[in-house]
Amino acid sequence: MFASFAELAAACHRLPPAHSDAAEKVASREATLTKPPGSLGRLEDLTGWLALWQGRSPPRLDRVDILVFAGNHGVTAQGVSAYPTEVTAQMVANFDAGGAAINQLAKIAGANLRVTALTLDQPTADFTLAPAMDEAAFLAAAAVGAAAVAPDADLICLGEMGIGNTTAAAAVAAALFGGGGERWAGRGTGIDQGGLDRKRAAIDAALTRHARKLDDPLAVAAALGGRELAAILGAALAARQRRIPILLDGFVATAAVAPLARLGADALRHAMAAHVSAEAGHRLLLDALGLAPLLDLKMRLGEASGAAVAILLLRAALACHTGMATFAEAQVSNKSS
Amino acid sequence: MFASFAELAAACHRLPPAHSDAAEKVASREATLTKPPGSLGRLEDLTGWLALWQGRSPPRLDRVDILVFAGNHGVTAQGVSAYPTEVTAQMVANFDAGGAAINQLAKIAGANLRVTALTLDQPTADFTLAPAMDEAAFLAAAAVGAAAVAPDADLICLGEMGIGNTTAAAAVAAALFGGGGERWAGRGTGIDQGGLDRKRAAIDAALTRHARKLDDPLAVAAALGGRELAAILGAALAARQRRIPILLDGFVATAAVAPLARLGADALRHAMAAHVSAEAGHRLLLDALGLAPLLDLKMRLGEASGAAVAILLLRAALACHTGMATFAEAQVSNKSS
Repeated sequence: MFASFAELAAACHRLPPAHSDAAEKVASREATLTKPPGSLGRLEDLTGWLALWQGRSPPRLDRVDILVFAGNHGVTAQGVSAYPTEVTAQMVANFDAGGAAINQLAKIAGANLRVTALTLDQPTADFTLAPAMDEAAFLAAAAVGAAAVAPDADLICLGEMGIGNTTAAAAVAAALFGGGGERWAGRGTGIDQGGLDRKRAAIDAALTRHARKLDDPLAVAAALGGRELAAILGAALAARQRRIPILLDGFVATAAVAPLARLGADALRHAMAAHVSAEAGHRLLLDALGLAPLLDLKMRLGEASGAAVAILLLRAALACHTGMATFAEAQVSNKSS
Repeated sequence: MFASFAELAAACHRLPPAHSDAAEKVASREATLTKPPGSLGRLEDLTGWLALWQGRSPPRLDRVDILVFAGNHGVTAQGVSAYPTEVTAQMVANFDAGGAAINQLAKIAGANLRVTALTLDQPTADFTLAPAMDEAAFLAAAAVGAAAVAPDADLICLGEMGIGNTTAAAAVAAALFGGGGERWAGRGTGIDQGGLDRKRAAIDAALTRHARKLDDPLAVAAALGGRELAAILGAALAARQRRIPILLDGFVATAAVAPLARLGADALRHAMAAHVSAEAGHRLLLDALGLAPLLDLKMRLGEASGAAVAILLLRAALACHTGMATFAEAQVSNKSS
């Protein structure tokens, strides 16, 4: 656990290098397999990426953890969501009972689902009026996220649940990358035009109120984010320290880790964007972070659902890499040169 | 088996309707599940699409068949491929031995792989000099494809293997949708610039030689296509007659079925584009057919590999549809209205 923003920021500059040796071994084998070089496209990149961070050739996906963090948001008082706040806790109960989309997707992807609710009975402050969290509350939530990272995980998927949190995510993105509510707010779970207008106004009010903090990525995350976003940031950093590759889910998860990229270019190198969601700001944010999403299925659910679907692509990639015959083994003539 | 082009064309106007009742039942259930309406994006569409053709609510994916057809092409004499012709038969042997990418992908997707080689020792004629096939040869290959469609399949994936067949596919696409080699030819398995120039020239030569046939989609398919493309067309039509949904793989598989769309707007309604490949003409062709690909992973292998990956998306969609709790079951508050 970090005692201050400064400690956390310093950790982003003390990170272990990627395992380029393992990635090179994967690339060497890939070149011998019975297909034209590069013809599996991004599937080949994915195997290399897993090796780069796991330090194993071939990489493996024996333990895949899906971490979903849930939080509540004071800004819902501004009428920014289509659903009432109690839905956050109700959906956590639904996760625990196995009834949500992510339960089905985790099962089909062969992943462990771990849901962590962050003091749902204590929403963050309404950020149009005060910082959502103070430094201590932010760091405590980040520590919860870090603690959820198992050292022996082969891959970690990061997702969230929190009524009102696309407003928080949009505010964080706006503060970090410029523009206001007009640029970053989307319809979230499906709010109507009046709600979208209120959402934009709440974001703009927060940017004005917290203007003096906008230069510090962690102060932004605390003032405009939420506990589940802080936990995701903490988990992403802990995974980076342990060189565990991570799959980011949608707009909220991406906004949650965006401060890390601002703290150090190296701090988010282990992250892959699972998909681009239908939420308005997500593609903008991925572009700002230089992340190329694997999937574009117009999903906008959160719960790590997009990340869970992307696990299937990773399993497909790994199956090809480990199971295919080489040109020599299969006695297939290689490219004429 | 059809006795003539005219018989096959007439069959495209005698097709059973889709099962809109089953699709409506799926949509009704989808609306009760614990997620904002539409938030699973295209996954929701996929479940509805399966129901629409299977006539079952919920749909099922118990028997998924991947049909890969292989053929050889006389146009390889023009130096249009990076690999020698014998690779087609070698790769068929690799499929049979379980060493190719599609073997690994079929396994992970829970699908049956069935590979059909079409007289590989008798390549089609070099279409720069003569029609690739005559009517009888085309219809025989189409019949082989139709015979590979199991009546009890829940989903059929169509793919191919054939050195030289991106040249044939590009020629078919050019003949059906206009433009020449410059517009439609890509690098296939990875040919160099000289090869690409030869490929474009071969296509343009064929378009000139067979100019009088370009108004008849089936004459185009016979003169410019290949046996594996004809088999894919036959399989697609047989699946349409039996209302079995099909997933199209890449550029070649899409070009193979494109004549059906020209014969009757209804003949390809059961088809979904699994992915857009990195092959230059594929996106153009999908646009021309009004097909929106599920995946864009820069794959360009063929073998039904992209379709096999897309099966994973269908399984994810179906798992959500059948496994999720409803708002009532989970006692989650629905959208405030």
